[in-house]
Amino acid sequence: MASFSFLNLVRKSGFSVSVILLMLISVASNAQNNILVFQSDFGLKDGAVSAMKGVAMGVSSDLKLFDVTHEIPAYNIWEASYRLVQTAPYWPVGTVFVSVCDPGVGTQRKSVVLLTKSGHYFVTPDNGTLTLVAEQMGIQEVREIDEVKNRRKNSNESYTFHGRDVYAFTAARLASKTITYDQVGPKLPNQIVSIPYTKPSFKNGKVEGTIPILDIQYGNVWTDIDKKLFNQLGIKIGEDIKVEVFNGDKKIYGGTVKYVNTFGEVSEGSDVGYFNSLLNFSLGINMASFSEKYSVFSGNTWSIILSK
Amino acid sequence: MASFSFLNLVRKSGFSVSVILLMLISVASNAQNNILVFQSDFGLKDGAVSAMKGVAMGVSSDLKLFDVTHEIPAYNIWEASYRLVQTAPYWPVGTVFVSVCDPGVGTQRKSVVLLTKSGHYFVTPDNGTLTLVAEQMGIQEVREIDEVKNRRKNSNESYTFHGRDVYAFTAARLASKTITYDQVGPKLPNQIVSIPYTKPSFKNGKVEGTIPILDIQYGNVWTDIDKKLFNQLGIKIGEDIKVEVFNGDKKIYGGTVKYVNTFGEVSEGSDVGYFNSLLNFSLGINMASFSEKYSVFSGNTWSIILSK
Amino acid sequence: MASFSFLNLVRKSGFSVSVILLMLISVASNAQNNILVFQSDFGLKDGAVSAMKGVAMGVSSDLKLFDVTHEIPAYNIWEASYRLVQTAPYWPVGTVFVSVCDPGVGTQRKSVVLLTKSGHYFVTPDNGTLTLVAEQMGIQEVREIDEVKNRRKNSNESYTFHGRDVYAFTAARLASKTITYDQVGPKLPNQIVSIPYTKPSFKNGKVEGTIPILDIQYGNVWTDIDKKLFNQLGIKIGEDIKVEVFNGDKKIYGGTVKYVNTFGEVSEGSDVGYFNSLLNFSLGINMASFSEKYSVFSGNTWSIILSK
Repeated sequence: MASFSFLNLVRKSGFSVSVILLMLISVASNAQNNILVFQSDFGLKDGAVSAMKGVAMGVSSDLKLFDVTHEIPAYNIWEASYRLVQTAPYWPVGTVFVSVCDPGVGTQRKSVVLLTKSGHYFVTPDNGTLTLVAEQMGIQEVREIDEVKNRRKNSNESYTFHGRDVYAFTAARLASKTITYDQVGPKLPNQIVSIPYTKPSFKNGKVEGTIPILDIQYGNVWTDIDKKLFNQLGIKIGEDIKVEVFNGDKKIYGGTVKYVNTFGEVSEGSDVGYFNSLLNFSLGINMASFSEKYSVFSGNTWSIILSK
Repeated sequence: MASFSFLNLVRKSGFSVSVILLMLISVASNAQNNILVFQSDFGLKDGAVSAMKGVAMGVSSDLKLFDVTHEIPAYNIWEASYRLVQTAPYWPVGTVFVSVCDPGVGTQRKSVVLLTKSGHYFVTPDNGTLTLVAEQMGIQEVREIDEVKNRRKNSNESYTFHGRDVYAFTAARLASKTITYDQVGPKLPNQIVSIPYTKPSFKNGKVEGTIPILDIQYGNVWTDIDKKLFNQLGIKIGEDIKVEVFNGDKKIYGGTVKYVNTFGEVSEGSDVGYFNSLLNFSLGINMASFSEKYSVFSGNTWSIILSK
Repeated sequence: MASFSFLNLVRKSGFSVSVILLMLISVASNAQNNILVFQSDFGLKDGAVSAMKGVAMGVSSDLKLFDVTHEIPAYNIWEASYRLVQTAPYWPVGTVFVSVCDPGVGTQRKSVVLLTKSGHYFVTPDNGTLTLVAEQMGIQEVREIDEVKNRRKNSNESYTFHGRDVYAFTAARLASKTITYDQVGPKLPNQIVSIPYTKPSFKNGKVEGTIPILDIQYGNVWTDIDKKLFNQLGIKIGEDIKVEVFNGDKKIYGGTVKYVNTFGEVSEGSDVGYFNSLLNFSLGINMASFSEKYSVFSGNTWSIILSK
């Protein structure tokens, strides 16, 4: 009877069967959602990413597998951290991320799973990769992966591919609810290894910030200055912004850009200041590369000063 | 009873349960099929593509997400148009494509969804991206996206990432049948913004065409000359074709290539003319790059003349 | 009745509905598992890979599509063979792989499907691509694709894109159980076209091997020397290994590296020998590229000699 009306419901409601199945599934759990998102510095030219996904599908073919990027520059933990926070907030609550940028593979850095206050999971070596998600999405709980229980069978001979044997395997088990979050391993204090960086500030009528990353594809320069801080300058759309960029103590760029909502407001080749998709202040040129034209790059030695 | 026989059917038929579920679903609708295919000029080095996919999975985790390519050269609307028509016909009817190559983001270009006569959907800025699919797959209907209703919540502050906040969001809602095609927004006249280009022709015993694109990976040169036009030359497999290639008025290449079905018919290093996977006339070299050897490239300034 | 208890089972067991559906499906068949994994030398810049996936989804939208890599260097059959064996063992039994690196497209090379003793399927031109999977995963059966029955409709005009019209199409039909393995086409003898290569050996107190491939992303040098062979040298973790590398007869590198489990055991910039994720002996530098520093590359002309 129950199932008879179930099928009737399908016919009458116009809902697809799979939508209804999904609703049943979510009754059973409000946590992990079978979505598993990979990030690494492996590149896509060899089989390493594919091996991780194969391991995941071996855990549960119910999983839906996606990627942030696998083009994190080798060993660049800061960029791994940045790409996670650029992306994770747009994925549904309960999504599990696995990030493998692990220059210290086989050493004493811990393997952890962070649950953020937003309800997202991050499986990764605790080497700084969690710096920005922990800060912006909040630490709900941290657990250390018990590598005796949560390790692919027969993988003890391999010391160099924890991405496949520990991280992808554990993340797949967590995402598919094969294990609960508690079963990942013992609870740690609510803190993670953090890469130190200078936070943006307003003083003496100027805003100072850093250039954590470039918008590589288009050559735009992204800062960590948000709108609230910027607004203390009192500059309005259409007005000029005075900009200085430094690498260490050396001034690399000094000039004036127009504050716009979008590139289309100026002619081709014009320099602009605007707020990017993460709502951080950025420098760009309509149809060209600010980074290339002015040799402005990113990293923890780069800083920027804005004024009216 | 109904469901009892349903399960018996499964056992007896040898059909998998999921195949049968799919059949039930297609009874409910002959339109969108939960398949969503992304294209952009974002590259894969940062998190932009992933953010779009996260938004889509937030709309419905039932969706199946795929890609055309994200390596469209920045701002190259012509190539975006070409890659769509190269690919879309091979996807099932009802598939929704979203293409974001949007140099005019934030300006007055319209955001539209094209339904082709073939039954495929294309979600994109109307900036020329639809040139070739409209022509080759036919315009059934065009609707403008109502960005008040079809926009990710809390995204009004961001002026620069319509790909995520409008296009991916609307495409996911359409592909998952969260909205009908009518609910995309108001109907527009059956026309789209088209990039002008010269169509191939036969005159005075010669076929003239253009070189819209290269087969980058192998260095083959693809023209827009189809078989019907070519056949007016009366050249048969195994015979020679006289070829001239121009960039503007400047002759770049003149020579003779052998007309073959496939590269294996000639020795390594031989120049050939053949019909590519889209059944357009192409130039290649067995195991080498025609483009590199003869400095022949593609774009709207390049033309080609074939004769016997 | 049956289905009533089915739904009760769902509620009581805590299993998700989809897990149970999957169990039902696997009762029906212990072979193909709806997982289809693509590899090619097409690159990701155009629409070729997407067209293949569209064809597969047209066969069955039940399929789960993944990739090994599409960055196999053009025509490099050896690397195609290596990437398959690096990856396939980590995918579940019943997975179907399709590999298209096909310099001889349109010639007399056979189109085959190999079933390995491990229970994996490989759909590919029989041109050497199967060399390493056949050797390491075992030949259970080989069948030739009947291209009359197993070819996309209306694709007879295209001679150059068997990847889309024959391989992806057949692989999708096989993976989705639209056809059985027998229906692929006639059985062939249990052998495949193999690329000749020298196997590693121990003699006169030295181990000789080859360098089949580089670990591109990090610049590590991977050999084909496994642990059993290496252990005949009697070298222990922490001890030095004497290494000579040759390209043909020319000595390219001679030196000493420390034998470690993992890079973290030495300081940055130190040369090491270690066992990689496939448990083969490899050369690396902590946080740098061995390949670049010493100009050591890979291929069938490269050899390596290890001694105490």
